[in-house]
This record gives sequence, C-alpha cells and structure tokens, in this order.
Amino acid sequence: MAKMTPRTLSGFMELLPAPQQQMERIMEVLRRTYSLYGFTPLDTPVIESSDVLLAKGGGETEKQIYRFQKGDADLSLRFDLTVPLAKYVALHYNDLTFPFRRYQIGKVYRGERAQRGRFREFYQADIDIIGDGKLSIVNEAEIPAIIYKTFSTLGLKRFQIRVNNRKILNGFYALLGLTEKSGDIMRTVDKLDKIGPEKVKAILMDEEIALTEAQADEILKFIAISGANEEVLAALEGYRGRNEVFDQGLAELNTVVKYLAAFGVPAENFAVDLTIARGLDYYTGTVYETTLLDHPEIGSVCSGGRYDNLAEFYTDRQLPGAGISIGLTRLFYVLGEQGMLNPDLPTAPADVLILPMTEDLSAAIGLATALREAGIRAQLHCEEKKFKQKVSYADKLGIPYVIFLGEDEIAAGVVACKDMATGEQTKLEPAATIYRIKAGLAEKEKGAVILG
Amino acid sequence: MAKMTPRTLSGFMELLPAPQQQMERIMEVLRRTYSLYGFTPLDTPVIESSDVLLAKGGGETEKQIYRFQKGDADLSLRFDLTVPLAKYVALHYNDLTFPFRRYQIGKVYRGERAQRGRFREFYQADIDIIGDGKLSIVNEAEIPAIIYKTFSTLGLKRFQIRVNNRKILNGFYALLGLTEKSGDIMRTVDKLDKIGPEKVKAILMDEEIALTEAQADEILKFIAISGANEEVLAALEGYRGRNEVFDQGLAELNTVVKYLAAFGVPAENFAVDLTIARGLDYYTGTVYETTLLDHPEIGSVCSGGRYDNLAEFYTDRQLPGAGISIGLTRLFYVLGEQGMLNPDLPTAPADVLILPMTEDLSAAIGLATALREAGIRAQLHCEEKKFKQKVSYADKLGIPYVIFLGEDEIAAGVVACKDMATGEQTKLEPAATIYRIKAGLAEKEKGAVILG
Repeated sequence: MAKMTPRTLSGFMELLPAPQQQMERIMEVLRRTYSLYGFTPLDTPVIESSDVLLAKGGGETEKQIYRFQKGDADLSLRFDLTVPLAKYVALHYNDLTFPFRRYQIGKVYRGERAQRGRFREFYQADIDIIGDGKLSIVNEAEIPAIIYKTFSTLGLKRFQIRVNNRKILNGFYALLGLTEKSGDIMRTVDKLDKIGPEKVKAILMDEEIALTEAQADEILKFIAISGANEEVLAALEGYRGRNEVFDQGLAELNTVVKYLAAFGVPAENFAVDLTIARGLDYYTGTVYETTLLDHPEIGSVCSGGRYDNLAEFYTDRQLPGAGISIGLTRLFYVLGEQGMLNPDLPTAPADVLILPMTEDLSAAIGLATALREAGIRAQLHCEEKKFKQKVSYADKLGIPYVIFLGEDEIAAGVVACKDMATGEQTKLEPAATIYRIKAGLAEKEKGAVILG
Repeated sequence: MAKMTPRTLSGFMELLPAPQQQMERIMEVLRRTYSLYGFTPLDTPVIESSDVLLAKGGGETEKQIYRFQKGDADLSLRFDLTVPLAKYVALHYNDLTFPFRRYQIGKVYRGERAQRGRFREFYQADIDIIGDGKLSIVNEAEIPAIIYKTFSTLGLKRFQIRVNNRKILNGFYALLGLTEKSGDIMRTVDKLDKIGPEKVKAILMDEEIALTEAQADEILKFIAISGANEEVLAALEGYRGRNEVFDQGLAELNTVVKYLAAFGVPAENFAVDLTIARGLDYYTGTVYETTLLDHPEIGSVCSGGRYDNLAEFYTDRQLPGAGISIGLTRLFYVLGEQGMLNPDLPTAPADVLILPMTEDLSAAIGLATALREAGIRAQLHCEEKKFKQKVSYADKLGIPYVIFLGEDEIAAGVVACKDMATGEQTKLEPAATIYRIKAGLAEKEKGAVILG
C-alpha cells in the first residue's frame, strides 16, 4: 500500500511525552493558582460565527484569522480568549453574578507567517474580572499579584511585572495639547525598547506625527523617568494639578503600587514603567507587561490591563474589567530553548514498572491495584520480552522504580523493588514498599518546573 | 453604536460556570485515573493537513469534516483522536518507547446535522496502548478495567462494559461459509438492539445479503446466546474445534474475562455479549461497548477494542494496539439531562468570600493570602456595595463561607466567619478559622460527581 508521509503542520506545537508532562505540570499550576484566587474555569467553543467573532472588525488580526464556510455558515476560529469572553458575558449576562472572575486556558489560532518560536495554534491562559457598571481599583493590583504568585510557584524568579496607567499617559498628552496625536505617540513610544530614544524622537517629529522638537523632548524626558518605584511616583508628583485625568491616573497608580506590596509582591518583581502603553485601544487604566529579566529580547510574556467596556459590540451595558493573558505556548517554547525547564522532575508515564515473573498474573495485577490505590502510577509489563529489555524499557522512559514479582517473592509475601537511580534493591512487604516509593517520589517531585 | 447579537453556534456546548465546574471535576478524575495506570498525556493539533488526516480516505465521516483552505494549504479539523495518534506514533516512532501508553482528552469536530444532544464540537477522552509488532492480550483486559475504575470513581454504578471478540465472529461466519458476507452480516446484527431479531432476520435474507433461512436462523441462534459470563463461554465451547480463528478468539475471550476479574471488575459491570461487533473495520480482537443500564436508549458511552494496524496509512511497521474512547461531551449532556450530576458538590468559584469592613485593606489582603496558602480558594469583595448585597453575592454563587473583617476583629486578632449553609457564625483566630473551613470543605467535597 502507498503510504502517506506523516507530518505535523509548521507553526503547530506537538510535544514528545516528556516535555508534554512538563507542559501539563505548568497548566496544573495555572489552574490551581487561578482557582485559589476565586476564578472559575470557562471553556468556550474554538469555532464562532464570523460575524460574532469579528463584530469589532478590522485590525491586524483579521488577516490572520482562520475563516471558512461550512454549508451556509461563515465560521472563524477564535484568535484570542477575550472576544469569546465578551460574547459569553453579554450572552449569559442574566445567569452570571458580578464581579465575574473567570480563567480560561485554551488554544487560539492566528495564521501568522511561520517562523521559529511563532505559533499558529497556541495556548493562552487568561484571567479576567468583570464588573457590572463599576469595578474597584483593588482588582487592578490583585491581577498582577496573581501573576506573581503563578510565576513564583512555577519556579521563575528573575521576572518583572511592569505597570503603568493609561490615564497618566492620556493626561500627560492632554496637558501638552497632544490628545489627538496620543494614539500615534503611544504606539511610537511603545517601540522605545526596540529602536532606542533617538529613533523614537525622529518618528515623533516626522511628517506623519509632526511634533515640534520641544514637544518630542518633553515626551522623551517624561518616559525617561525611571528608578525605584517611589522615585518614579515622586517624579510624577511634579506634573500633578495640571490635568484631571492625569491626577486620577496618578492616584490609581499609587493605590495599585500600595496594594501590590500588600498582596506580597516583592519590590524587585514589579516596576512602574512609563513606557508601557499596550498597543490595544481598549485599555483605559492600569496596564501590565511582564518580562524575563535575563531575556528581554523575548518581549512581554504576560500582558493585560484595565478596560472600561468589555462587550460594547454586543451590549449597551457597561462591563468594565481587568485581565491579563499568558502566551503559554510561546513561553513554554522559550523556556525550553533557554534550558530553563527543570530536567530533574519526573516525566515518565509511570512511577513504578511491575515485571511479573510468573505465568499467572493475578498476584502482579493485585499489586498494581494496591499501588494505584495508594496513588502511585503503576504499569504492568506483560509483553513477551527478555528481562533485560523490560528493565531497559523502564530506563529509557525514566520510570524511577521497577518491581520484580516471582514465585519466591509471592510465597514470602514480599516484593523486590529496585530504585533505578541508586540501583538499591529492597525486598519488603507491599505496604513497606509503597511507603518507601511514596517517600522517594515526594523527594523527586520537590523542585519547581522552571529553573530560576 | 449598532450591536451584534451575541450567540453561540448550535451544536457547540458552552456551559455556565456551575456545570463547567462539574465538567472540570470529571476531567480531573479522568486525568488522574488514566495517569495511575501509566498513561502519558498527549496533546496534538486540532488542525492537520487534509491529506494527512484523510489518508485513510472516504467513509461516513468525510462529509462531516470541517475542511478549508488557508493560503495554499488544504486543512481539516480533527474528527477523532485516533487518526492524530496514528500520525503521531508514525511520525515520532524513533522517539517513542513501546508499548506506548497515552491518554488524550481533546475537542474533535464533526459537522453533523444539529439535533438535541448531538454536538459538532465535542470532547473525546481516549486511552490507547500501542505495541511495536506485538501486544499482549493482558492489555485487552486492562483497558476495560481502567474504564470500570474511571466510571466508579466518578460515582457511576449502574453501567455495564460489554465485551466480545471479533475473531469469534469472524471464525463463526467462516465455519458457516459466510466470510465474504461477514461485514454485511455484522453491520446488520449490530442493529439488533434497535430493530429486534425479526427485522434482523429479514434484512439478512433480503436481496442484498441473501442468506438462506437456515443460515439466518443459525446466526440468530448464535447471537441469542446469553446469560452469565460462564454460561456464554460454556455455550461457545460447543463451537470449538471447527475453525482456527474462532478457537483463537474464544481463548482470548476466556483470558480477557479471567483477567477482568483479576483487575477487580465486578461481574455485574461486565458482560460477554456476542452482539457487539463495532462498525469499524479495523478492530481485530476484543471489542467493547459500555451502556448505562438505566438508559440503554443512549447507546454506548464508551467504546473501543483491539486493532492490528494503527498506522498502516503512514508506515509499514505493524503497530497493534488496544484503546477505548469516552464521548465526554455527550456523556456530560446525558448525565445533566437525567439529573445524574450531584448537585451537592460545591460549584462556587471560591470557598470563602472575604468582606473587608475597613478603609485600609491590608489586613483583609493578608488574610486572603493566608487562606490561599492553606489551599483555600478565597475571594476579596472590595466593590462599593451594601453589606447585604455582598452577602447575597456569596449566596447566589453558593460560596460556602463568608468572613467579615472589621476594626474590632482586627484589634482582637480574630475573624468572624459565617457558614452559609447552617448560618452558624464563629469568631476565632485565623488558624482556627482555617482549620474549621478545611474540615467543612472536606465534608462538602465527599460525594462523587455522578449520582448512581
């Protein structure tokens, strides 16, 4: 028979079993952490009607969307988890209780040009808090605190959540009389890290934006404000009293910084950074980006902010919210590339491989059942293979314990158990073996998924 | 602004938060149980190249597939998890160790005619064991044992895993000289439950299949063999010695039945049933279907079997396997319709709602952190709402505990905690409150997800 060469589409991550186990571990930490903060899991369809999904219309993403006909229906695959959330909240408004806190970890699709480290199918892991009409500023501090907790639980240490407030930016541009141009200016300033201050200044003064040199200098001076959080906040005090929106933003930023500390986020893991604006128009208050301090070239691995109208394309109700999104697939890829995934954590499919040495398998099956009831992942190896091949099977997969069960052991009521890492072999009763294995596994599971 | 009416496509399940929590619980039981049996999690792309996905070609499913162009690429959404597994194993053969045991819980897509309880996007939860060249018969007993364990852990009691062996059927038809017609006959016999023996006989004798009445009677007599497993196996002994394939199938069936008992599956939860054939051609040995005894009208909720060539369209290597699939979305729908989802299990997004009664939130935030560190899901309610509205928020969401934290409590080093179910209120130190809440939650979490 002619064979079809199997392949996986480029831009689609398909992991081997060991890295997949690491990915599962990360997802489990995300689910658990988000749950601890009172977020409920949601799962919305991958496919939506194109008119619903693209109600907001246009933009960069539209070209990248997977859109197709099925029968009479014009369908699209979701390109983020925010639009489906907006639809969900508008559609089920009467069945929800506000503030509504949800997390969603799901695949989204963007037909970007394929390149290393860019994915067309990728997981986003989002949390959002949606208010009905109003939403307290405390949420804008809690959101990055959750990200701090998530990343530290994963083992990440050298990261920084950078925080700013759009009202400060809008107010600042207003007091310069540049409100009309603030969108263009912010998009330009957003490139500061990539292109440097001189090129930013040149773009600000080119034909399109056409600022005076004095205006451009004023902006560069403003975004150059840096230092410890108290220093930045103190420098911002110098602008207070000249614009209402600015003053409101500054008050919010002060509150967020205060509560971030109360939520236990250490000073080294967050920074007020006036260059953060977020490209998207719909952010209206606090905005966040998160960078890995040793890998700034990666850009933000977790971004979000406060918005005033989640679902304005579906409903007249004002539904303000605050949310943040981890680009999980890309983050996982980067962690792997940088050698930051802890290789010492078990990635084997089982904790114990049982090798029955008798014709009748009842005793081996009974032992497997006992191990599983004790929460130990156990696999029976009943294939017709040589003993050596079976031990090598455990070795290849990294299964930490191998149990041999022959007539002698069964008669004596013991099991022979080999620790594959140390080579140490014990002959103990089943209960004692289970105790020993569980202690050993607890030791092996001790580390975090991410190194440093 | 003109609004787009939000809607979700028909045939796509989108759950409200409370039922979604139930679904998550079920998925967590599946993941944990599959892991205990040594299965490794896999995650393959939802989109595959059409030529790869449809290498096997044709069939009923092809019409239902979501297939589309993106740029030059001809793409399709996966319609099951078996074809992607075949591709995965063929593609990554050199990186895998056999027997390869994997589970996958993922969404698949079939553009079926929309009707109640039928879904176009639905979860399948599959386990498969793939051998390289050979695979022991023990696996064919372990697979249904895992399903038994999964369903009982979920709380399901009144279900039956029905087991047969294709070699018995093929051998039986061979000894009647009806090998050529065995496919047609099995497809007809498969309808026995739905249309009854008389209609089956009529179809067997119609122009197309054209059996003699004697042959049809012989078949009906054979598939009428029923009773306890030992009785069925004893009746099958009567056919032994007339066909090699039959004898091999009978030996396999005897082994599977013996080991099913060794794996701890109670006699009432499995039955040898000679009418089970499974429509798909690729099953070659043991086959399974699982029915809810009180809802036979639903048909099989979990099916699978033994196959000899998982990846024959991609590779010359013989990769036999045994696997089974739960149609999770449909099962969840049916359980909900039948009122079989345990309403007593908590579905709230949080275990505790904290109501800060002071201007400064530091104490409340500190308490939330302490609760979370103790593994308690805690939410702060800092919105500007009346006290009564905040308590009603907890009530609506079913949050079991509400903590009030005012100046007095903070000064006294205690917290006021109300059990929303009993109305009982305590004023205890934080550690004692945490202890009490954890004990209460353990009690509330005691039940299984599924009733009966």
